[in-house]
Amino acid sequence: MPVGLRAIGQRSETVRRANLSAILRELHADGPASRSALVARTGLTRSAIGHLIGEFVAAGLVSEERAAPLGTPGRPSPLVRLESNRVGVIAVEIEVDTLAVAIVGLGGEVLDLLRVDRERTDIPVEDTAATVAELVSTVVRRPAAPDAIIGVGVAVAGVVRRTDGFVSMAPNLGWRDVPLGQRLVEALGLSLPITIANEADLGALAEHRRGAAIGVSDLLYISGEVGVGGGIITGGNQLTGAAGYAGEVGHMPVNPQGIACHCGSVGCWETEVGLDALLVRAGRQAGGGRSEAEAVVREAAAGGPLALQAIEEVGRWLGFGLAGLVNIFNPSLIVLGGSFTRIYPFVNEVVEHQLEHFALPAPRLPVRVVPATLGADASLIGAAELAFEPFLADPAHWLRSGAASSALASA
Amino acid sequence: MPVGLRAIGQRSETVRRANLSAILRELHADGPASRSALVARTGLTRSAIGHLIGEFVAAGLVSEERAAPLGTPGRPSPLVRLESNRVGVIAVEIEVDTLAVAIVGLGGEVLDLLRVDRERTDIPVEDTAATVAELVSTVVRRPAAPDAIIGVGVAVAGVVRRTDGFVSMAPNLGWRDVPLGQRLVEALGLSLPITIANEADLGALAEHRRGAAIGVSDLLYISGEVGVGGGIITGGNQLTGAAGYAGEVGHMPVNPQGIACHCGSVGCWETEVGLDALLVRAGRQAGGGRSEAEAVVREAAAGGPLALQAIEEVGRWLGFGLAGLVNIFNPSLIVLGGSFTRIYPFVNEVVEHQLEHFALPAPRLPVRVVPATLGADASLIGAAELAFEPFLADPAHWLRSGAASSALASA
Repeated sequence: MPVGLRAIGQRSETVRRANLSAILRELHADGPASRSALVARTGLTRSAIGHLIGEFVAAGLVSEERAAPLGTPGRPSPLVRLESNRVGVIAVEIEVDTLAVAIVGLGGEVLDLLRVDRERTDIPVEDTAATVAELVSTVVRRPAAPDAIIGVGVAVAGVVRRTDGFVSMAPNLGWRDVPLGQRLVEALGLSLPITIANEADLGALAEHRRGAAIGVSDLLYISGEVGVGGGIITGGNQLTGAAGYAGEVGHMPVNPQGIACHCGSVGCWETEVGLDALLVRAGRQAGGGRSEAEAVVREAAAGGPLALQAIEEVGRWLGFGLAGLVNIFNPSLIVLGGSFTRIYPFVNEVVEHQLEHFALPAPRLPVRVVPATLGADASLIGAAELAFEPFLADPAHWLRSGAASSALASA
Repeated sequence: MPVGLRAIGQRSETVRRANLSAILRELHADGPASRSALVARTGLTRSAIGHLIGEFVAAGLVSEERAAPLGTPGRPSPLVRLESNRVGVIAVEIEVDTLAVAIVGLGGEVLDLLRVDRERTDIPVEDTAATVAELVSTVVRRPAAPDAIIGVGVAVAGVVRRTDGFVSMAPNLGWRDVPLGQRLVEALGLSLPITIANEADLGALAEHRRGAAIGVSDLLYISGEVGVGGGIITGGNQLTGAAGYAGEVGHMPVNPQGIACHCGSVGCWETEVGLDALLVRAGRQAGGGRSEAEAVVREAAAGGPLALQAIEEVGRWLGFGLAGLVNIFNPSLIVLGGSFTRIYPFVNEVVEHQLEHFALPAPRLPVRVVPATLGADASLIGAAELAFEPFLADPAHWLRSGAASSALASA
């Protein structure tokens, strides 16, 4: 329920904008659809749909083809489809041990993807921005690139402000108070909007739109790496908080008698369930990252008792923290991403047991806990969705200004 | 940001409904306004405003009067005001030690209020519903009652499902799995919609619309009694979760080495910051409720060291838990309600200290922690807002069906 009493009135231009947006979102989410299906899904009249589709066709964003007759009497409804090679976005992922750049077409198709591994050392933001710029200039020149690039979306493993991409803290990248947004603007030299968000927020967005959580309005996406991130969707809205910092569930205090966290606090959830906690419990060095964690998982799969115990203990703390989040958010789905996807088969039972024990019965009952389905590319796919958002929200603006075509020249 | 890709298209009837709603919300929130002010605040044209106001005037919901000239040239814009004695709601609060019923007019004026104290024993839901029905039948017969009662809003100190008012757990009322909504429907015997929500959720709504948090989109309202409740507003929306159970921050685990909670878990936040924790630390019996807590506050105000220490310790745990919530929600404001309002002057410093120590710097920086301003009536005021919501969201429905007038007969 919206709690604010203010509501902005609607003029007819606002209505046209909202209706164009509704149609575009349908096609972007679900692919080609008949006019009849669009009538059913948007609630608009057939004639309104026809008129609005005409605008998209004239702009070259949408094509219509005669659908195969279904054996029912009457004229078959034409099939409306997006021209995915017309408009696209650049998606960027900045992780501790990997950098990725993709071009994604309207409709969500990944047209091209470059991923480079990085030594896990503290790489200055300027060098990171330069590498991103190189990768971007490579992909936009490839044949798969669409006619017009309309924006850049960036996923970063850090605490980031939405308005300007200022990274307050990304301890595993070695960054603190880094103007990532500004550095990327300088390095890319494109006159395109660049939007930056936390990787777990974008993982949640991706799993919600195209992964394990399609159609779910209340979900927690919890991603385990060295740090633990949360992407939270409540009532169909992404939880961003006042400045975009929300969802830092890794720094939820769960153990006042626990160990010091790099954030300066004590007993944060990620000190008990992050990769280092897993490695140390499995008798290995902290700092080994994903590859070492992978070795622990293999050891556990082969029945190694120390690895199994270590994973079990992580699962116990994972369930304990999730119980608190279930009581706070009353979600219907929890999606486990990152390293949690890998250990899910081993910890599934202990997590359920902890929820049974520590969560309130009412919110606990309807919750399902599932592994993520988009794998390592979740944040990248979410970054593309973030970059498409202004276009999806107000296609009228782009149709009017011809911004989509002019963006091409600058890309 | 809305993350769903589905958006419903808008027909002209939908637009009229939204515009009537926008005007009504303005008048309900801020009181009388000139047509010019409504033009500025809603973004609608002057002629649209005039037309829509005309509909409200015809239905007797709104009156217009010539405003005093402001010394500027031209015709003064007429002042539009709600007829607060035309339409109202019944607000009910069911607390452990008190029951309250109020009649609130459109615009938020409390026209009448009855409050009765209860012995703190486990009162069956049927008896509670019967007492509520008696109070309601008294207030609706009083001269202050408006022409038409359009709904009933109920605040209850428990974990409650929004759809039907089923109370899953209200330990301090001694209720578990109680169909409160159904019992109230039977006892009241009115053909009015009854909506039930958790008292802290409604406290948050009230403080947001008419208290300490007006204009704040991201806020936590944390209310301390025997249990600790949370009402959370993020991005201007109330966090309800999948079934309305969200916000049970009192059962966020903060201390795995802590004491058993009545919910069956261990080390829940309310075992460290609830009234009983305060009383036991102050050398008193648990179960003494608000009056005993008041005695501790008086003792502390007089410099009593044990009372001061007890309050300080509660403050330490309060800040520790708030730090986690700051990291999770990135709010710009935290409003402390219930007993926390009373101890605020004593714990303000230690809470700030704990936030400094345990919250991440980025989300911690912009947070202000303030006491609630609506006092003991916050939940009741929120219950009235809840009952008004369907009317505010779709006044067109009421204007069309004449439901407002017909409801009068049944009240």
